[in-house]
Amino acid sequence: MERMSMGELNPSARILMGPGPSNVHYRVLRAMSTPLLGHLDPQFLSVMDDICTMLRDLFQTKNRLTIPISGTGSSGMEASFVNFVEEGDTVIIGVNGLFGERMVDVAERCGAKVVRVDAPWGNMIEPEKMIKAIKEHPQAKICALVHAETSTGAQQPLEEIGRFCKGHSILFLVDTVTSLGGVEVKVDEWGIDICYSGTQKCLSVPPGLAPITVSPKAIDVMHSRKTKVQSWYLDLTMIERYWGEERFYHHTAPISMLYGLREGLRIIFEEGLQPRFERHRILGDRLKMELEGLGFRLFAQEGYRLPNLNSVVLPSGIEDGPVRKKLLTDYNIEVGGGLGQVKGKIWRVGLMGETCKIQNIEYLVAALKEIMAR
Amino acid sequence: MERMSMGELNPSARILMGPGPSNVHYRVLRAMSTPLLGHLDPQFLSVMDDICTMLRDLFQTKNRLTIPISGTGSSGMEASFVNFVEEGDTVIIGVNGLFGERMVDVAERCGAKVVRVDAPWGNMIEPEKMIKAIKEHPQAKICALVHAETSTGAQQPLEEIGRFCKGHSILFLVDTVTSLGGVEVKVDEWGIDICYSGTQKCLSVPPGLAPITVSPKAIDVMHSRKTKVQSWYLDLTMIERYWGEERFYHHTAPISMLYGLREGLRIIFEEGLQPRFERHRILGDRLKMELEGLGFRLFAQEGYRLPNLNSVVLPSGIEDGPVRKKLLTDYNIEVGGGLGQVKGKIWRVGLMGETCKIQNIEYLVAALKEIMAR
Repeated sequence: MERMSMGELNPSARILMGPGPSNVHYRVLRAMSTPLLGHLDPQFLSVMDDICTMLRDLFQTKNRLTIPISGTGSSGMEASFVNFVEEGDTVIIGVNGLFGERMVDVAERCGAKVVRVDAPWGNMIEPEKMIKAIKEHPQAKICALVHAETSTGAQQPLEEIGRFCKGHSILFLVDTVTSLGGVEVKVDEWGIDICYSGTQKCLSVPPGLAPITVSPKAIDVMHSRKTKVQSWYLDLTMIERYWGEERFYHHTAPISMLYGLREGLRIIFEEGLQPRFERHRILGDRLKMELEGLGFRLFAQEGYRLPNLNSVVLPSGIEDGPVRKKLLTDYNIEVGGGLGQVKGKIWRVGLMGETCKIQNIEYLVAALKEIMAR
Repeated sequence: MERMSMGELNPSARILMGPGPSNVHYRVLRAMSTPLLGHLDPQFLSVMDDICTMLRDLFQTKNRLTIPISGTGSSGMEASFVNFVEEGDTVIIGVNGLFGERMVDVAERCGAKVVRVDAPWGNMIEPEKMIKAIKEHPQAKICALVHAETSTGAQQPLEEIGRFCKGHSILFLVDTVTSLGGVEVKVDEWGIDICYSGTQKCLSVPPGLAPITVSPKAIDVMHSRKTKVQSWYLDLTMIERYWGEERFYHHTAPISMLYGLREGLRIIFEEGLQPRFERHRILGDRLKMELEGLGFRLFAQEGYRLPNLNSVVLPSGIEDGPVRKKLLTDYNIEVGGGLGQVKGKIWRVGLMGETCKIQNIEYLVAALKEIMAR
């Protein structure tokens, strides 16, 4: 075992081709090593404003309340439910993987009555099934879906459901942890009311922040709650006062992480959203072709496969644990194993943000060929 | 206004003498700019183990469950209540400042019936008053106190109350956000069952993590809950499985922040705890003397003043807002204003971790003399 002593921190230089974290641009790491400002310093308030502006462009929204939550992607999920759900509310959740299951758990802890719309792992959820569930539960407050199921590599179509929700009082909640910055996410056009993500996937910023955006329709729901938000830390009615003009202190912002996010967003807009999505699309196709050539079978439903997180069923010659260990220790390549019901059966090969480069694909393929030839 | 464009991040080099964040050692910043490992990489698991080992030494405890929560200090507060309180439980809270008030808010959101033990802001809470309240509410589940009230600079005596709690079923919960690493905190000896802190004060690591330690007595209470923890993100019954031997995935750990914490802890143990406390004590006395010489009056109760967070009432010649702004823009020195009921009346001058240096005191005093002479 590669045990590091309590000496210097000198980790190996990994190529992070798992489901996240992805590799981080050196400019982001450099920004994170900048000496700190205080969380109420006027210069820091400008940093916050810059981040909000760029996050709005990234989410393709005009929502005023568009900020990073001070926690990892899962804290974004919790913030997205806890601020809007009150005891006894009905919430419709599409479940076709681990993160849909997690949504059910989170919503129930908020006191929600959950209506599940299930689909097999690896498949998308038929939009008509979601719309039917909404029609059958006209009192439902929220309809929630995962855009990019990190556990299966499936991409969920959203536009039809969003269009339906727009015409009704129900709020449309979407998890874009693995999609934002890698594939198109159009919050306003698609009628999404609550949308959260994480920094460690296609933004290529270290884990620790959860960008979130909230529509005016959802803010109205939040402001007309009868009860206090059960989480103090994630209470957006207070957090919005720190990120808004009032600058009212809530908790000490994670300064260095926000420095990193700002730089990561700058890099994204230097590349441009469309070229970035194109890069993920082209290289995602390339990786899939290469892996199929090696005998892997694509796991996710055809037509609904993510470019940036490629789920593949292992060929008979490849043993999950030992081969992933060999990739890591002999080649410095991390790929992800399966979670939950597909544990041991599939791999999840990420091509997110900085990781999404042709040289990483070539190197992974060469490494696999070597291992399989032995 | 010092508005930074969306160009390069080039903040001024501040001396952070407020209530936190404090200045960060360059080695911590450097560690944070290290390329990332995955959150299940064996090398990263070693980093996690190193952190737990050093945190135990820092908290002076043998508690197995001693980990950093993936959020700022306030998430540590929430984790400390949400995992142990169930609907209808009685919680006794000492309130002598903003963070005691915050505890009340957090506990009530968990469904607690809160019994307040109040003292004037700036004073400590008489241990006999806390013990009396515990005797009057024998069904109470938790007795909670803030060790170092960041809003007032008061230091709370804990030993007598801890001794009493040890002999009873009640859990003793203590906030050491501003004290840990700057003044003595003896979790085991003092009978503390739940103790949380933050990284951005005397540990001199950027904000974003909340070290927490939980005694076996408190773990038993947690494991015998009748209801699920209402926060998924802060649910220690799941988080302990990732930090423990199982390594069961919960959420993606904030890798870079943990790199920083590891390095910050190494620096603390290179100095040694006792020399570090001594440094804070000596320089805290020095700063208090200097500020009194300039006409400031010490705010916190005599005998219970923190060395690392010095609260002072402004002399008549000094206007709060304008002078703090001048210190920041002309001298690059940040000091903290008052919060809540002492807003505009006091300053909070921090001497925490890396900030706690004689040159910072000398420079602040020289700056104040210049400003007051004008």
